[in-house]
Amino acid sequence: MSSTHLTRDDVTAAVLAAKRVKQLTFASLAEQLGKPKVWLTAALLGQHPFQPEDAARVGQLLGLDDEQVVVLTEVPTRGSFSPTAPPTDPTMYRLYEVLQVYGPALKQLIHEEFGDGIMSAINFNLDVERREHPGGDRVRITLDGKFLSYAWD
Amino acid sequence: MSSTHLTRDDVTAAVLAAKRVKQLTFASLAEQLGKPKVWLTAALLGQHPFQPEDAARVGQLLGLDDEQVVVLTEVPTRGSFSPTAPPTDPTMYRLYEVLQVYGPALKQLIHEEFGDGIMSAINFNLDVERREHPGGDRVRITLDGKFLSYAWD
Amino acid sequence: MSSTHLTRDDVTAAVLAAKRVKQLTFASLAEQLGKPKVWLTAALLGQHPFQPEDAARVGQLLGLDDEQVVVLTEVPTRGSFSPTAPPTDPTMYRLYEVLQVYGPALKQLIHEEFGDGIMSAINFNLDVERREHPGGDRVRITLDGKFLSYAWD
Amino acid sequence: MSSTHLTRDDVTAAVLAAKRVKQLTFASLAEQLGKPKVWLTAALLGQHPFQPEDAARVGQLLGLDDEQVVVLTEVPTRGSFSPTAPPTDPTMYRLYEVLQVYGPALKQLIHEEFGDGIMSAINFNLDVERREHPGGDRVRITLDGKFLSYAWD
Amino acid sequence: MSSTHLTRDDVTAAVLAAKRVKQLTFASLAEQLGKPKVWLTAALLGQHPFQPEDAARVGQLLGLDDEQVVVLTEVPTRGSFSPTAPPTDPTMYRLYEVLQVYGPALKQLIHEEFGDGIMSAINFNLDVERREHPGGDRVRITLDGKFLSYAWD
Amino acid sequence: MSSTHLTRDDVTAAVLAAKRVKQLTFASLAEQLGKPKVWLTAALLGQHPFQPEDAARVGQLLGLDDEQVVVLTEVPTRGSFSPTAPPTDPTMYRLYEVLQVYGPALKQLIHEEFGDGIMSAINFNLDVERREHPGGDRVRITLDGKFLSYAWD
Amino acid sequence: MSSTHLTRDDVTAAVLAAKRVKQLTFASLAEQLGKPKVWLTAALLGQHPFQPEDAARVGQLLGLDDEQVVVLTEVPTRGSFSPTAPPTDPTMYRLYEVLQVYGPALKQLIHEEFGDGIMSAINFNLDVERREHPGGDRVRITLDGKFLSYAWD
Amino acid sequence: MSSTHLTRDDVTAAVLAAKRVKQLTFASLAEQLGKPKVWLTAALLGQHPFQPEDAARVGQLLGLDDEQVVVLTEVPTRGSFSPTAPPTDPTMYRLYEVLQVYGPALKQLIHEEFGDGIMSAINFNLDVERREHPGGDRVRITLDGKFLSYAWD
Amino acid sequence: MSSTHLTRDDVTAAVLAAKRVKQLTFASLAEQLGKPKVWLTAALLGQHPFQPEDAARVGQLLGLDDEQVVVLTEVPTRGSFSPTAPPTDPTMYRLYEVLQVYGPALKQLIHEEFGDGIMSAINFNLDVERREHPGGDRVRITLDGKFLSYAWD
Amino acid sequence: MSSTHLTRDDVTAAVLAAKRVKQLTFASLAEQLGKPKVWLTAALLGQHPFQPEDAARVGQLLGLDDEQVVVLTEVPTRGSFSPTAPPTDPTMYRLYEVLQVYGPALKQLIHEEFGDGIMSAINFNLDVERREHPGGDRVRITLDGKFLSYAWD
Repeated sequence: MSSTHLTRDDVTAAVLAAKRVKQLTFASLAEQLGKPKVWLTAALLGQHPFQPEDAARVGQLLGLDDEQVVVLTEVPTRGSFSPTAPPTDPTMYRLYEVLQVYGPALKQLIHEEFGDGIMSAINFNLDVERREHPGGDRVRITLDGKFLSYAWD
Repeated sequence: MSSTHLTRDDVTAAVLAAKRVKQLTFASLAEQLGKPKVWLTAALLGQHPFQPEDAARVGQLLGLDDEQVVVLTEVPTRGSFSPTAPPTDPTMYRLYEVLQVYGPALKQLIHEEFGDGIMSAINFNLDVERREHPGGDRVRITLDGKFLSYAWD
Repeated sequence: MSSTHLTRDDVTAAVLAAKRVKQLTFASLAEQLGKPKVWLTAALLGQHPFQPEDAARVGQLLGLDDEQVVVLTEVPTRGSFSPTAPPTDPTMYRLYEVLQVYGPALKQLIHEEFGDGIMSAINFNLDVERREHPGGDRVRITLDGKFLSYAWD
Repeated sequence: MSSTHLTRDDVTAAVLAAKRVKQLTFASLAEQLGKPKVWLTAALLGQHPFQPEDAARVGQLLGLDDEQVVVLTEVPTRGSFSPTAPPTDPTMYRLYEVLQVYGPALKQLIHEEFGDGIMSAINFNLDVERREHPGGDRVRITLDGKFLSYAWD
Repeated sequence: MSSTHLTRDDVTAAVLAAKRVKQLTFASLAEQLGKPKVWLTAALLGQHPFQPEDAARVGQLLGLDDEQVVVLTEVPTRGSFSPTAPPTDPTMYRLYEVLQVYGPALKQLIHEEFGDGIMSAINFNLDVERREHPGGDRVRITLDGKFLSYAWD
Repeated sequence: MSSTHLTRDDVTAAVLAAKRVKQLTFASLAEQLGKPKVWLTAALLGQHPFQPEDAARVGQLLGLDDEQVVVLTEVPTRGSFSPTAPPTDPTMYRLYEVLQVYGPALKQLIHEEFGDGIMSAINFNLDVERREHPGGDRVRITLDGKFLSYAWD
Repeated sequence: MSSTHLTRDDVTAAVLAAKRVKQLTFASLAEQLGKPKVWLTAALLGQHPFQPEDAARVGQLLGLDDEQVVVLTEVPTRGSFSPTAPPTDPTMYRLYEVLQVYGPALKQLIHEEFGDGIMSAINFNLDVERREHPGGDRVRITLDGKFLSYAWD
Repeated sequence: MSSTHLTRDDVTAAVLAAKRVKQLTFASLAEQLGKPKVWLTAALLGQHPFQPEDAARVGQLLGLDDEQVVVLTEVPTRGSFSPTAPPTDPTMYRLYEVLQVYGPALKQLIHEEFGDGIMSAINFNLDVERREHPGGDRVRITLDGKFLSYAWD
Repeated sequence: MSSTHLTRDDVTAAVLAAKRVKQLTFASLAEQLGKPKVWLTAALLGQHPFQPEDAARVGQLLGLDDEQVVVLTEVPTRGSFSPTAPPTDPTMYRLYEVLQVYGPALKQLIHEEFGDGIMSAINFNLDVERREHPGGDRVRITLDGKFLSYAWD
Repeated sequence: MSSTHLTRDDVTAAVLAAKRVKQLTFASLAEQLGKPKVWLTAALLGQHPFQPEDAARVGQLLGLDDEQVVVLTEVPTRGSFSPTAPPTDPTMYRLYEVLQVYGPALKQLIHEEFGDGIMSAINFNLDVERREHPGGDRVRITLDGKFLSYAWD
């Protein structure tokens, strides 16, 4: 029996160390694993479990040991920053600022179009792309989630 | 001189009251004003100033008085909820949850693709659409912002 | 045009005032309206919109005016207490304490039984009953929500 | 005398490590120990003490040493997350959201049915089951606690 | 129907205003009503409901109107200060400081004497007395609550 | 010179480890040391300094080394939990809930009886006892502190 | 009976309004009332009760009505700012900064000189004076409180 | 090159360890170093840098090594406790309570005497003394800071 | 005697209402009053007192009444937003972000250049200008404060 | 593959340790590297990535190993202190206080001069200089950022 408990954070650190040494990008890893780029990056950062065969492949590509590979298959406790403080990093803060400025507008328009309910964050995917633009290239982020109607039974 | 100071929140309340009485939708108001739907909704909710002629048109459509129309042209103090607590409303919370789960992944992928910098939330637009889907229609939200590279001078 | 904006909180206060004067219970209102007891109570407390015909019936039973009835049909901004502090009321605190003590256990068991995903709080219902018991009657609360599997597309 | 103080968190980590290596589930452990599933899972996650004979049996099943077994019998300091922030994990957050939306309704209905008092979280049990459903299987969670009437003497 | 919703806080304010004008003490009110001193004071400050006949008697003594008397009979939402900050008032802070210094000691001794469980704060009473002492009179506060053993079923 | 700084928390951990191995109770330790039970428990948990001779006796009973004994004689920085969050442990939370429900009542009654001032938490003692009761034994906690009158000079 | 409950904050506002109109200083009021300057200022700002004869005299000087005078004699709930945030005003912040930089040093020196205990903030006085100085006049603030030794009985 | 970065906190811990072993007091250290008692204590607790010759002398008296002595000469990041919570230690809390009760009074009196500005906490000194008193000796703390007038240029 | 207490916030609201009606800019008001632009704007927003003659002139320009003019001469309680949360408005947030990214660097460089001490925020001025630039005009903000050396006496 | 994950904080600690041993200043390092003083200091404190050739040069000057040099080239997660609390260090606090007093004034003046938008904190530079002054030398800090106009497309 292993004497200590390997956590998902430990494995995320090992993943990032291996990625640095091997000079890999998240995009290339996604391609090699045949996974969507945002999903794979979030998963490697500890936000999603891997299917066993995918975990094994990640282990091979990054040189993880067997216990680390098992940890990749377990459902993690999700969340990336404290819920009582916005992220201080400017790149992440801008996404948070979008919520501060446009959150209620999105709520109103979702209700106008679909009625009472939510955009699922579970039955959901996300993409980020570069969009060329003469005034400076743009980041385009697409959130796509199933509409869930409030239903009592 | 008016004896009290009319705030933007007062005008937002008046806008919502008029919209209710006149049974208007944000989408129809956007169409009548020739403005993007998300922008107009956010602006009516107090997050953007209006150009004078647009404010006048909003005033006509909603029956606002002259001082209320002036307030619509002033730059507001933006922000929709406390920065030390996530929104409790489920429709808005899901957008916040997306940040909790995918925020660091988006940061990594933006840096891989563009280098050091941010997606602007100022030179920025946002759209929300219904996407038909056999497994249930989906909400698609597109964020589109200029990439700004960290530049010292 | 109404000069002030009637909020859902205003209507909730009117509902509670009428309920007091008319000496009604939530359970009897639920029966008269043909709605599940917990749903109706939550809705009257401002957490759900009513269908127009139900709102009209609520208005009749409680003596609300037309604008108040319209407000009941609008999707509210949900949430009952600050997300940065547990409720101080002992009756509500005990429900929160259950989460503190059993939350991670429920997460583990949901994942063991269903795999990665969540119990929906949208496609969801809730009941509360008295269960007679020789050692003292018991409160039985049943949460019943659709399992949603994490699905990327 | 042991030179360091083994905490319950240390033992929880050892339990999780052993469970991973031995590929056990909480449900199977509960069956082997003849304990309710939710109680046993919460206890293994550090929220309840074990009776000495049960602790010994857990130690055998998971390969814990004697001091770890003693720790399992001590009353722990309970609580799973910060009381000033909702859990960020989506599976646990949904349970918290249920409180945000339905907490005051449950309070009202408990008082209507039982009078002034609380549902005990001490004289209390909890179950979680899969309920098959054509529209997708459902998670059913049952809270069952003794009603305690406010009594001064 | 009353056009506004009278809250318990409104009634507490009316109680305090009447008590000031009539120059009554809480102790004398407790005696006149035949209630324990601490219970009655807490109840008048909005933390407990009154039985209808007691509420009527309070109404007579303090000159409350009928609706205020009804409010006194409703189960209140309890709690006297923010759960995320100690009280700033020195008289109340000292009680909080006692918890900071002696809370874990009380937990240990309750468990040593009674096993796993809690002192009920529901089946509970509280008294405060003056104890004469040559070195200066002392405040004696006695908490007396039923021990509740953790019991799963 | 010792190369690291032994803190009071380190010594508390050593005390708890020794207590576990030697299977001692706080009550028996208090008896052996001739100290009040609550005082001794709080002191062993790091909230009070010991007189040198008492510290030496504690050291003998628990097998502490000389430096640990010296640490026991130093005035500690007191406090057991974060002042911005109630304790999550149910046994301690109930004591906190008593403050939430009865704190202002105690303040009023102290002022009625003694005038403006506080119950000292320094010139203060505390006891906890089991009181037998046909309806279930009760925990009785007695706080006894000198009344301190606000005095400017 | 007065229909509303006059609070101490209401009376403080009335005091400040009268002081402005009558162009009085706190120092001159202290002199006229024969009270220490800091005590009187704190009391007028709502932090101390007045003896009935002093309250009457304050009422005369400031033109308060009878009910306001009674409120001045009641023990207030003390505290001037949120305990979870330093004051933003620079003049008050500097006093808070002194605590941040020198608080632990004062604790150490009090214990070295007096042993275990505290400087009372109840049996306590405070003065503020101008001290002339060639490099610029100085503010001298003197805190003077009785030392209270920790005493169990 | 040292492989790790020695922080000021590390050096403070070494100072306290040496002080304990050598059985020194802060007061005697201040005398030996010819420094004001409060300044020296605060500096040893990590709140002020030392001049090189003073740091060397501290190093000799306490047996610090060369790198530790260098750290003592660097300007530290100051502050002793979280700005979002009062200190839980009763000795320090009383100083904080003084601010809660008298902070605004001090602000008013500083402005009355000096006009708009602050007492500097930089051009500032602080003393603590025992003052004998028949009713019990007293702690006298004197804050003495230069008045700084708000000046735009 | 005025029956209510006019606060500085009330006067700030009146200033903003008058400025809107009279279509004035802060810059033109600064010019008319012969005051630095940033100082005057901050003062009108409630952060600085005015000299009596300047207050009178402001009153004339904006049509304030006599009591409002007096309020302008009183030292305000300063501070513009909660110290426990960054401002949500993007224009103000960017200034806060500058502190998050560059605060420690500024501290290091101030100490390298000046030794131990601070840049005064009291003996201090601030300017904001437009700087033309081919790549887009720039905002230049200049902070200029007296260096204050830590000095004990 | 390295078995642990070297973080940017680890490298910052190594940078500070080397700077101490080699007795270098940030200013001299900036000169040697041909970089702006504030930029270089912020970058060495972990707030900016280095270009590979600059990282190599930093490595040579400070004696860093290869992996540390690679870490210097990665985009860091930025931010220097908790967003829910002002910095306690007086030198940094004064910069924060400037925001509290002048933040809204800067917002108003930016909008008067430029219209709706922000000063970029990305396309931005910052300088700090000593300005000699007969009344005491001054710290001059210049913020210079591109104005970004709110633009929807």
